[in-house]
Amino acid sequence: MSKTAGIVVIGNEILSGRTRDENATYFLKELRTLGVDVRRVSVIPDEIQAIGDEIRSASRNFDYVFSSGGVGPTHDDVTIQGIAAAFERKVCRSSELETTLREYYQDNLTDTMLRMALVPEGASLVRGDQMWFPVIVVENVYIFPGVPEILASKFQSIKERFREDPFFNRDVFLVVEEGHVADVLHEVLAKYPDLLLGSYPTFTNPEYRVKLTLESKSEDYLNSAHGFLLGCLAARSIDPI
Amino acid sequence: MSKTAGIVVIGNEILSGRTRDENATYFLKELRTLGVDVRRVSVIPDEIQAIGDEIRSASRNFDYVFSSGGVGPTHDDVTIQGIAAAFERKVCRSSELETTLREYYQDNLTDTMLRMALVPEGASLVRGDQMWFPVIVVENVYIFPGVPEILASKFQSIKERFREDPFFNRDVFLVVEEGHVADVLHEVLAKYPDLLLGSYPTFTNPEYRVKLTLESKSEDYLNSAHGFLLGCLAARSIDPI
Repeated sequence: MSKTAGIVVIGNEILSGRTRDENATYFLKELRTLGVDVRRVSVIPDEIQAIGDEIRSASRNFDYVFSSGGVGPTHDDVTIQGIAAAFERKVCRSSELETTLREYYQDNLTDTMLRMALVPEGASLVRGDQMWFPVIVVENVYIFPGVPEILASKFQSIKERFREDPFFNRDVFLVVEEGHVADVLHEVLAKYPDLLLGSYPTFTNPEYRVKLTLESKSEDYLNSAHGFLLGCLAARSIDPI
Repeated sequence: MSKTAGIVVIGNEILSGRTRDENATYFLKELRTLGVDVRRVSVIPDEIQAIGDEIRSASRNFDYVFSSGGVGPTHDDVTIQGIAAAFERKVCRSSELETTLREYYQDNLTDTMLRMALVPEGASLVRGDQMWFPVIVVENVYIFPGVPEILASKFQSIKERFREDPFFNRDVFLVVEEGHVADVLHEVLAKYPDLLLGSYPTFTNPEYRVKLTLESKSEDYLNSAHGFLLGCLAARSIDPI
């Protein structure tokens, strides 16, 4: 079984449609490549209670939770309070983070910026290469900032700890209506119940009408299911392109 | 108070990172323009129970729910069953939808395609211009397909029913560190508690360091808050660009 993950994007700017999400998209691609099975993405507002409820539930349901957003020094940065609420912990100032901030900002450090040293009580700090400010971790929740470039650079620093067996996949493109292969797909799943099998119609692509996606953590199982699918299609005179 | 909405994207292809979400992004932009306040986006797998749980909760919490995906004729299309489960309803065949499918597909209609006439018991059908297949609605849940072009065309047909008073907004761009305006933002919110005020740092844009976003459903309130903010900034010798 793969490890599972939930992604929680915290940000009114995404919900208002004014900024397009980049962070969930980034996590999804990276985690899949690492072999982690993301089971849920949520986008929620910058509100302590909404964050607490979502993080609590995701933390219980998945092996890992990755949050993005709401960790700066301004009024709308309430992720730390929300995650503290999720685990019924207090917010306290981390002396290790305070030292990090003082070293980085030197004389420019203001009291407001010191807010970034606040963590849920008992949080741990994960450091990595090329990252002056560590990732704050509470239970199985990894807290990332909302700025996409910084999020990506931090994730790259620590991603190897999440690596699992990879997913293998194959696609099959067809020029028939999706409805005409539904029976074939049932037949394939009856024989290969553990295959991750998707069927996606398109109405605008001139090259094909349906894309079938086959996925498995076992390359042999995938290849065997793929061969069986091709046989079923051939028996119905449906040729993949 | 604005009407609120939740968006539920149903699709393993999004969670696997193989297909980038277009539908939540589209709904977010459109609904904001219509003045609707989207409070949550979730991306969940093609699984009846996950769909049922998510739709039930969203339906209780928001005025409208928009789902996308999982409504075709293949094995991974379980949205109708999931939404029926959310409201503890049976799935039944709609004779009106059956007629629509027969008229559209004529002699090409297969039993498999007839699965698309299945609806949660008591569902209503919303028709609009340039839409041969109606939008299925259960309680406050509007069910859309996953193919982005079709989703958009259907939404355009029925969107006017969701129109509210619009949001007004203004942006202010600054070249200071975000931490240096945190106090100003608190001051603004103390005087204008109903202002939707966001603060977003960037570290890669050569033009500015922080974008402040101000939003309100009252244009007067927005303008007044904007003027007050500019005054506070001027008092600290911070010039917007």
